[in-house]
Amino acid sequence: MKTRVIILNGGSSSGKSGIVRCLQEVLQDPWLAFGCDSFVDALPARMTSADEGIVFAADGGVSVGEGFRELEAAWTDGIAAMVRAGARVVVDDVFLGGAASQQRWRKALDGLPVLWVGVRCEGAVAAGREVARGDRTRGMAAAQADVVHQGVSYDLEVDTTRSESMDCARTIAACLT
Amino acid sequence: MKTRVIILNGGSSSGKSGIVRCLQEVLQDPWLAFGCDSFVDALPARMTSADEGIVFAADGGVSVGEGFRELEAAWTDGIAAMVRAGARVVVDDVFLGGAASQQRWRKALDGLPVLWVGVRCEGAVAAGREVARGDRTRGMAAAQADVVHQGVSYDLEVDTTRSESMDCARTIAACLT
Amino acid sequence: MKTRVIILNGGSSSGKSGIVRCLQEVLQDPWLAFGCDSFVDALPARMTSADEGIVFAADGGVSVGEGFRELEAAWTDGIAAMVRAGARVVVDDVFLGGAASQQRWRKALDGLPVLWVGVRCEGAVAAGREVARGDRTRGMAAAQADVVHQGVSYDLEVDTTRSESMDCARTIAACLT
Amino acid sequence: MKTRVIILNGGSSSGKSGIVRCLQEVLQDPWLAFGCDSFVDALPARMTSADEGIVFAADGGVSVGEGFRELEAAWTDGIAAMVRAGARVVVDDVFLGGAASQQRWRKALDGLPVLWVGVRCEGAVAAGREVARGDRTRGMAAAQADVVHQGVSYDLEVDTTRSESMDCARTIAACLT
Repeated sequence: MKTRVIILNGGSSSGKSGIVRCLQEVLQDPWLAFGCDSFVDALPARMTSADEGIVFAADGGVSVGEGFRELEAAWTDGIAAMVRAGARVVVDDVFLGGAASQQRWRKALDGLPVLWVGVRCEGAVAAGREVARGDRTRGMAAAQADVVHQGVSYDLEVDTTRSESMDCARTIAACLT
Repeated sequence: MKTRVIILNGGSSSGKSGIVRCLQEVLQDPWLAFGCDSFVDALPARMTSADEGIVFAADGGVSVGEGFRELEAAWTDGIAAMVRAGARVVVDDVFLGGAASQQRWRKALDGLPVLWVGVRCEGAVAAGREVARGDRTRGMAAAQADVVHQGVSYDLEVDTTRSESMDCARTIAACLT
Repeated sequence: MKTRVIILNGGSSSGKSGIVRCLQEVLQDPWLAFGCDSFVDALPARMTSADEGIVFAADGGVSVGEGFRELEAAWTDGIAAMVRAGARVVVDDVFLGGAASQQRWRKALDGLPVLWVGVRCEGAVAAGREVARGDRTRGMAAAQADVVHQGVSYDLEVDTTRSESMDCARTIAACLT
Repeated sequence: MKTRVIILNGGSSSGKSGIVRCLQEVLQDPWLAFGCDSFVDALPARMTSADEGIVFAADGGVSVGEGFRELEAAWTDGIAAMVRAGARVVVDDVFLGGAASQQRWRKALDGLPVLWVGVRCEGAVAAGREVARGDRTRGMAAAQADVVHQGVSYDLEVDTTRSESMDCARTIAACLT
């Protein structure tokens, strides 16, 4: 069965969004792109600074509450429904819960042909890019670089430490069935 | 049955996004917000300037092709699935096809309790706000002000010409069952 | 002597930026636009959350330090130099220091033909627009609505509470000498 | 005399803005950052699509007219005045005119201690990053990669093709007098 979903998992500033845009360019079929950023944008503003929602601490730590998890589960089901309705979808996410986060996606995407991609980037390099982009809370890149991959299994991994987004996208595209 | 979906329809620069953010603030339950802008952001870049996708002409005209409609249908089904999975969702859209656009949403949201809201704004005022916001192709506001409402039926209509976003949001909130 | 500088002063979310874009549209000559937002963007990121720089408190309060004032003074002199070099410039600012802020501009713009414009908006309305725009710390609009005008003298005042940005721009344009 | 101005010149998507933000981070003194992007943002909207202003063609070509050059000259003088008033300023620019562009800056900055930095990036790599960032007209990166350096002389050059923004910033910082 041909791949209909690509899930990219990696820490903040590891280069996921750039890879997604390159994937949309190099893949001949049109793919829709969603991700944790667009999901957070869909939340009420008050949930992005509340214990029940998602909190970005000044030191780069991120914690999410029960209310966040409930809406996220519905959103995840919606993404799966788009695929069942015929769309190809690429998602970039940050598995703050590691294997547990992957399990949530597995459940929602049950029966669908998924390509799991790990996006690695050395913490020190990601931290430098976090400074260079200038729009993220400092410390997230270093804090998330390794922890988001713990216990997660992939079909392939790319590493942006010394590879361009476009090259990573081509590597991923070559793995689609 | 309590309202689980709010659909706001109005022309460009009629003030839909502002009303959505105010709604998310005044409603006690958390509501997810999606809309035509976030859908277009999810498309491959090449589809936002191609005949099969969506084209924003220099004069403010907008036309969409077959490829756009297919992905939009899958996206619409996904939004419906989020609601069936338990989320409350507010959507802002521009019914370029008038009644036909509403029919597409009706089909996807079949059986769900929807509140249909028309967002009006006099064309000349919307055109002025288009200049003031500075991030939209000129002419869209005037071109869409009336045509998007043709043949569409609503549960209520608000008019931002002389009302604040927050007041419109409160009016809508009072109509939720 | 013909007006070469327009200074708009008003609280956060009073509608200054929208008026500026409309002014640039309705005025036949090309006017450059600068303001406190573009100045803050020019600062090192670390100065936007440090006591020596500018601090946006969670409650909407804003305080600035000595380091901020020194750079601001140089920036102000630079704006004046652009005008002396032949450019027409419109500046939107938030006079957190009221009359003292105006005095700083007066000193830098000494000898230049300036139009001083107060941009008023009722605090409650500005607070609603702050929610609607969704990209500002809550509370700034209400906190600044009146205080920024204390002791400041204007050539004319506009009020966006019940007037459109475009109409305010036309009123201002009619006052240019 | 200690360096008070840093001018970075490089093509679109060569990584100038990222280097600037890293420079502001690694340099102990506060440096203000301005550049061609912030200048274009200051222009009336109608000048960004008009022959007298600046035109971004669909193929990535950029051309500027007489009206643009006049305002740019005043802006350049204003930047110089900020430095004379005591600020340290880093500017990133795209020398579309090569040596002639540098000459314009030299004239405005006469007598000030400037560090001239060339920011190189192989055209093919810059073109990939242009796709990855997703917010620029395609083709600018490739079109500008070499031409902006023709006839320009530098105090040092950095190359982002295989170096991180942070590393380039550290190299530049080490050259400040």
